[in-house]
Amino acid sequence: MNVFIVHAHPEPQSFCAAMKNAAVETLSAAGHGVVVTDLYAMRFNPVASAADFLDRADPDYLVYALEQRHAYETGTLAADIAAEVEKLKAADLLLLSFPLFWFSAPAILKGWIDRVLLSGLTYGGKRFYDRGGLSGKKASIGITLGARPHMFGPDAIHGELETMLRPILRGTLWYTGMQVLPPFYAYHVPYITAEARAAVLAEWRNWLLSLQRASPLSFPRLDDFDERLYPKPRADQG
Amino acid sequence: MNVFIVHAHPEPQSFCAAMKNAAVETLSAAGHGVVVTDLYAMRFNPVASAADFLDRADPDYLVYALEQRHAYETGTLAADIAAEVEKLKAADLLLLSFPLFWFSAPAILKGWIDRVLLSGLTYGGKRFYDRGGLSGKKASIGITLGARPHMFGPDAIHGELETMLRPILRGTLWYTGMQVLPPFYAYHVPYITAEARAAVLAEWRNWLLSLQRASPLSFPRLDDFDERLYPKPRADQG
Repeated sequence: MNVFIVHAHPEPQSFCAAMKNAAVETLSAAGHGVVVTDLYAMRFNPVASAADFLDRADPDYLVYALEQRHAYETGTLAADIAAEVEKLKAADLLLLSFPLFWFSAPAILKGWIDRVLLSGLTYGGKRFYDRGGLSGKKASIGITLGARPHMFGPDAIHGELETMLRPILRGTLWYTGMQVLPPFYAYHVPYITAEARAAVLAEWRNWLLSLQRASPLSFPRLDDFDERLYPKPRADQG
Repeated sequence: MNVFIVHAHPEPQSFCAAMKNAAVETLSAAGHGVVVTDLYAMRFNPVASAADFLDRADPDYLVYALEQRHAYETGTLAADIAAEVEKLKAADLLLLSFPLFWFSAPAILKGWIDRVLLSGLTYGGKRFYDRGGLSGKKASIGITLGARPHMFGPDAIHGELETMLRPILRGTLWYTGMQVLPPFYAYHVPYITAEARAAVLAEWRNWLLSLQRASPLSFPRLDDFDERLYPKPRADQG
């Protein structure tokens, strides 16, 4: 497998960075190709704007998705985006590595999503979910968070963690057609002992090595919806 | 009311910007104070980093939330953050205005959340949800999106829109203690006629004028959880 890790933590000594480093080591040792985008280290610009396009389909009015399509087709994407797109196209597995900020991705990673997951390449028209442009690839996330496991669940204070992550897991990774493998959660990271951290890193390494055999999460498929995207009658309804 | 609008759209001629302008006009005419942060216009930096702190509690290892607390207490926040914090403190109602990018906020707005909603001021320890640091304030969102209403709902292709927005509505606005008023959704915006847009703008103006009377969304409260944040037994269970 070619694994593409996109990492977003402002502290290079963080546990999240240690997980990223362990992933590079473990996956490489297992014979996989590994490419890393370290967004903070490269000072990635996360702001989707007109400056992302060297030639404009419509110079007077910016529709970001339409300009993405035009720039991708004509080879006029800003260089930093084009470089990330090439890494993404070469990947069999995309792994996002980040600390949970406000139950979602830090802005620098959200901006990588906004700018790199191009309309025209990763989705467009009826090309989304199982028909998305990145179908055939797999994706997952490895995240660090301060909360404890019991704070998530149907009756828990924050509800289901996977529901909080829906915009990323379903609305982004699955939207582009990637099979989403079950996430890895490193809980309570700022507060745990060195021994507990070592145990989490060991779990993480095992998780990484089991990824190829993991069953993807289940999400809606376009075949269950009609041309206008209304749900089709289910078989058990006649 | 003092209304603080945080707006994030890269195209000043967009319908989303027209909604923001209509909000300024309508709310001002109704006698409210209105302050706008236009993130693209001010080229807001959305990247949470060590550069946000003029003096470090720990110069060797960045724990972003701890440095936020230290910088807020000692008056050593970066100037762009400090200015936004003052606007936030003066607000009775925070209104986020943005186009839905990947079922969530554009990175430039996510970074405003990451950097401005300070630990120590807006949350910290057991100060979150109904005990959050911004309790007493209200908040809502007015968003534009390409999808149509029937694409959201329990059996719809994308599921519930409010569930996709949970990290923002519950995980951010309610997390800091603000009462979250029902959102305004402008659907299918890139594809509708000028007449339909005018109708949406009229609805939006009515929505703005009814905000003070709107009932907030219902979310978990800390009184329903024990000291360790496990759910308390419910009354009907004895």
